[in-house]
Amino acid sequence: MYVVLIYDIEVDDNGAKASRNIFKICKKYLTHVQKSVFEGDITPALLQQLKLELNKHIRENRDSVIIFKSREERWMQKEFWGKEDDKTSNFF
Amino acid sequence: MYVVLIYDIEVDDNGAKASRNIFKICKKYLTHVQKSVFEGDITPALLQQLKLELNKHIRENRDSVIIFKSREERWMQKEFWGKEDDKTSNFF
Repeated sequence: MYVVLIYDIEVDDNGAKASRNIFKICKKYLTHVQKSVFEGDITPALLQQLKLELNKHIRENRDSVIIFKSREERWMQKEFWGKEDDKTSNFF
Repeated sequence: MYVVLIYDIEVDDNGAKASRNIFKICKKYLTHVQKSVFEGDITPALLQQLKLELNKHIRENRDSVIIFKSREERWMQKEFWGKEDDKTSNFF
């Protein structure tokens, strides 16, 4: 399945550290697209594994993660405007 | 069609103002989900109108907007972890 993962980490004393850890974990499984946005193909099992790893760093009452899931990438077209720091984008 | 819009505005002198304007414009067309993340059903014509309005505030070499488009919402399941400030989410 194809997913887009977006995280929002509260900027407080431990926020920067949590954010760095979450970024590194996401990078192991998905492609970095923009600041706190990742995308990519992933199996349900690996997505579960990613969640377990992230759960160690996500602070339930402060931080949030959203995952948009689609069965296939072609059902999720992507469009970019402005400054682009992602090599995998596909303009439509 | 169903879209997820994510913007990333560079934090500089005019960044705060640009961010406020962009937030207000997005709120007219889509549902706010998380910090700089919006989602919702929108027609191609209205998406074009949204782009034109945003283009007045997006600074090409500093800011970026990503839009993920899917023909229908049901092809884009959403999952939330942690702090949730969106009433339209649907857990799976």
